[in-house]
Amino acid sequence: MNTRPGPTTRIRIMELSGSATRERRDYLATEEPLEIRLTAPDGTRRTVAITMRTPGHDFELAAGFLHGEGLAGPGDIAAIAYCTDEDLPPEARYNTVTVRLRGPIPDLPALDRHFLTSSACGVCGSASLESLHDRCKPVPRGRLGLTPEFLYGLPEALRAAQGGFGKTGSLHAAGLFSATGELVAVREDVGRHNAVDKLVGWAGLTERLPLAEHVLMVSGRTSYEIMQKALAAGIPAVCAVSAPSSLAVELARKFGITLVGFLRGERCNVYAGSERIAME
Amino acid sequence: MNTRPGPTTRIRIMELSGSATRERRDYLATEEPLEIRLTAPDGTRRTVAITMRTPGHDFELAAGFLHGEGLAGPGDIAAIAYCTDEDLPPEARYNTVTVRLRGPIPDLPALDRHFLTSSACGVCGSASLESLHDRCKPVPRGRLGLTPEFLYGLPEALRAAQGGFGKTGSLHAAGLFSATGELVAVREDVGRHNAVDKLVGWAGLTERLPLAEHVLMVSGRTSYEIMQKALAAGIPAVCAVSAPSSLAVELARKFGITLVGFLRGERCNVYAGSERIAME
Repeated sequence: MNTRPGPTTRIRIMELSGSATRERRDYLATEEPLEIRLTAPDGTRRTVAITMRTPGHDFELAAGFLHGEGLAGPGDIAAIAYCTDEDLPPEARYNTVTVRLRGPIPDLPALDRHFLTSSACGVCGSASLESLHDRCKPVPRGRLGLTPEFLYGLPEALRAAQGGFGKTGSLHAAGLFSATGELVAVREDVGRHNAVDKLVGWAGLTERLPLAEHVLMVSGRTSYEIMQKALAAGIPAVCAVSAPSSLAVELARKFGITLVGFLRGERCNVYAGSERIAME
Repeated sequence: MNTRPGPTTRIRIMELSGSATRERRDYLATEEPLEIRLTAPDGTRRTVAITMRTPGHDFELAAGFLHGEGLAGPGDIAAIAYCTDEDLPPEARYNTVTVRLRGPIPDLPALDRHFLTSSACGVCGSASLESLHDRCKPVPRGRLGLTPEFLYGLPEALRAAQGGFGKTGSLHAAGLFSATGELVAVREDVGRHNAVDKLVGWAGLTERLPLAEHVLMVSGRTSYEIMQKALAAGIPAVCAVSAPSSLAVELARKFGITLVGFLRGERCNVYAGSERIAME
């Protein structure tokens, strides 16, 4: 069980082209949490970050993160190793890196102000998904049926509603569509997770949650974080212009969300929940 | 001074097209930190997140964030307001949102494991930049000279070295180039900040820091976070296929980094440090 995750993950998907479908093999970018721990010569230890990343070059990631944050330069590091603690489940072994410092663990005053571990609970993707079960139920099958025409129309409708993108060419967008294809709301942000938060927050403050029978369309890629926010909002279908990560697909399959990617022109890939795709 | 930041920021840039340059006006997506605070009826309060975002729909962002994290649903919220604390500098007023809960502040066990506030110190962009001065010196002018031919060749060289992108179409890449245009190292990740961390970590572990006379090329956009990592590594020039945020440009200008964006075909925009651009 001491399996080491690779940078890409192979899966089977459904490809939609015009009005035809076919099954084929595809590769996804692997997304798994990485926990970075510091240890000092006196035995003290501390977790300083958990971040979603693509496995590979993990020691460099840890060293670069510490340098960028001003926590430890290369000269402060005695050794870097994967964690071999007995208390770690085997599948998490390659998701925890311990950086042994030559001196004491630096003060981390910034930690009073922090990000939540929105994207990781436990240190393997499966554990993160398991922990979501505590607060999120799978999305009901519902009556939502997505025809190819419906899907192919989403990117242009989102783009047309993006005021900021035309001006700057750089804002991520998240749009909420009704089952009949009406654009209900759109939000933009430099952070794609923020665009989704704004949309879900709008729905919450206007008493529209859960967003059953709605489709979320995002301008970029889909990650674990985006899918987790969609799940919490009860959204049954998420569509994106670009690719999903491995963990985004795993979450979608586990919680019954339809996940569409590479939605461009008259084609797209269906990574999960193809039962909601309504062919003629 | 009670200025409220808008979603876009106007600046003057240098446009490079073939071997010609011209100055013109441009719009950037605004990037500023937002602090989300919770308060309970008994007067307790707590900061739960500081995130970089584009100003606008901030109350929705706060409500959506709390919902997605499972911290508070819409029904738990009594009111949301911008913070009017006396201890806040005026320019930070619209960067702090207080969510007044109907009940107590929820337990935040996840906070033992956290992200650092890598992208925000203080709650306005200028304060974040000021605080960087404590640990980062401006990048020296150096001898680096970037010809249009050098710049135009970077995207294809990076793309050709991206093993994972061709397979998945979804990995961000960061490449390090020497002054003569040689690709020194490339790293890929689902998170663009991770790709840069891996690159800088590699440089640190192989005793190459600071990376003076090198150019960082990234496949996506440039944000405050990316520029902060480049600055810590002493990189004098950052080039990107897509747009920078307002705070990325501000950081580049303040710390003497050349920042190039929309580098596609035989054209690009120079947002900062044009003194390193070497025209014939």
